[in-house]
Amino acid sequence: MSKPVLYSYFRSSCAWRVRIALNIKGIEYEYKAVNLIKDGGMQRKEEYIAVNPMQMVPAFVVDGATLTQSIPIMEYLEEKYPSPAILPKDSLQRAKVREICEIIASGIQPIQNLVVLQKVQKLSSEEEKAEWAKFWINKGFIALEKLLEKCSGQYCVGDTVTMADMCLVPQVGNAKRFKVDMSPFPLISKINDELEKLEEFQKASPFKQPDCPEDLKGM
Amino acid sequence: MSKPVLYSYFRSSCAWRVRIALNIKGIEYEYKAVNLIKDGGMQRKEEYIAVNPMQMVPAFVVDGATLTQSIPIMEYLEEKYPSPAILPKDSLQRAKVREICEIIASGIQPIQNLVVLQKVQKLSSEEEKAEWAKFWINKGFIALEKLLEKCSGQYCVGDTVTMADMCLVPQVGNAKRFKVDMSPFPLISKINDELEKLEEFQKASPFKQPDCPEDLKGM
Repeated sequence: MSKPVLYSYFRSSCAWRVRIALNIKGIEYEYKAVNLIKDGGMQRKEEYIAVNPMQMVPAFVVDGATLTQSIPIMEYLEEKYPSPAILPKDSLQRAKVREICEIIASGIQPIQNLVVLQKVQKLSSEEEKAEWAKFWINKGFIALEKLLEKCSGQYCVGDTVTMADMCLVPQVGNAKRFKVDMSPFPLISKINDELEKLEEFQKASPFKQPDCPEDLKGM
Repeated sequence: MSKPVLYSYFRSSCAWRVRIALNIKGIEYEYKAVNLIKDGGMQRKEEYIAVNPMQMVPAFVVDGATLTQSIPIMEYLEEKYPSPAILPKDSLQRAKVREICEIIASGIQPIQNLVVLQKVQKLSSEEEKAEWAKFWINKGFIALEKLLEKCSGQYCVGDTVTMADMCLVPQVGNAKRFKVDMSPFPLISKINDELEKLEEFQKASPFKQPDCPEDLKGM
């Protein structure tokens, strides 16, 4: 059987989530880079639209199918490769993990992603683009920090790494990139620091991917 | 045992998804209205922030816990009340359902939701606000229409109602509200029409909720 293929871009926080999940599950995969910037974006070419009509990464080719959207891909990995589990056994705990995932995946990231920011800049200015991203990340993190007070342990939900953590680290990565002041978010910061110690998370970093430009590597 | 409580707003497409799921599963619930508009929005009051720090609906109080985010709530309902199933048995098919859910729940709706539109209007104009919503819905529907060509039957994935359908109908509702031209989307339109025939979907309509103003009721 051929290895699954991950269409990824080193900086994409959504592809980053899936890279972590694949590393945690110990699944080998082929990395195919989709440069979202060069020549107006390779995701807008016919060749890639055939892979993912949403013109986004990640896309994951596995078991004869092409899956898109990071959370469904992680759910699929959990069903097909249940060990180690990235969702708790208890249904309420599972819901809590998925809730954190969605706060990030639908409540924060889509509003500060590349294509929305490009549109904001056209509408307004370069400065507003940066402010826009900071505003939405900040708003989401205020809610997330409160939620984590109730459910976190060493990681987002208890002391086991879950899908929620795989969403958290890339979103903190985006926050840092947009220079969000992290001091009001001690819990998010602490959990992020813990997660960054793990080899599976380190290997998934944007700055360790094959398509990361040489001058950014190892940052 | 007390009935579960759904914090909802009649127009909220995310609360609408959960209303459909509850109807399909035949679960009785108490409806608590959160007016997102009046007096700057009841979701911004301390009382509701304690329920959901994201200041959004839905929130769902069940089994002693408060869950937020529509997709995780639907996943929870599926785990606790498995019949009738709203996810297929086959993992690849489940992934396809979840993919459609996320295209809508993270790829379209968050960028055209109330709070983002309020921000766009501040940045630009009332006209741009309407254009913005249309632009993102259109972009997402182009991708969705292509995807449905491969996986749809009578409904989004095959001939059984799934979570994907519960996301589709409210998003088509938003599209119509923003006057998106639906003629390029025959499959989305056809599936939506089929779903609107079902009693469980009809009962969940914004215009049949207790907090729908009298002059809009039955629209």
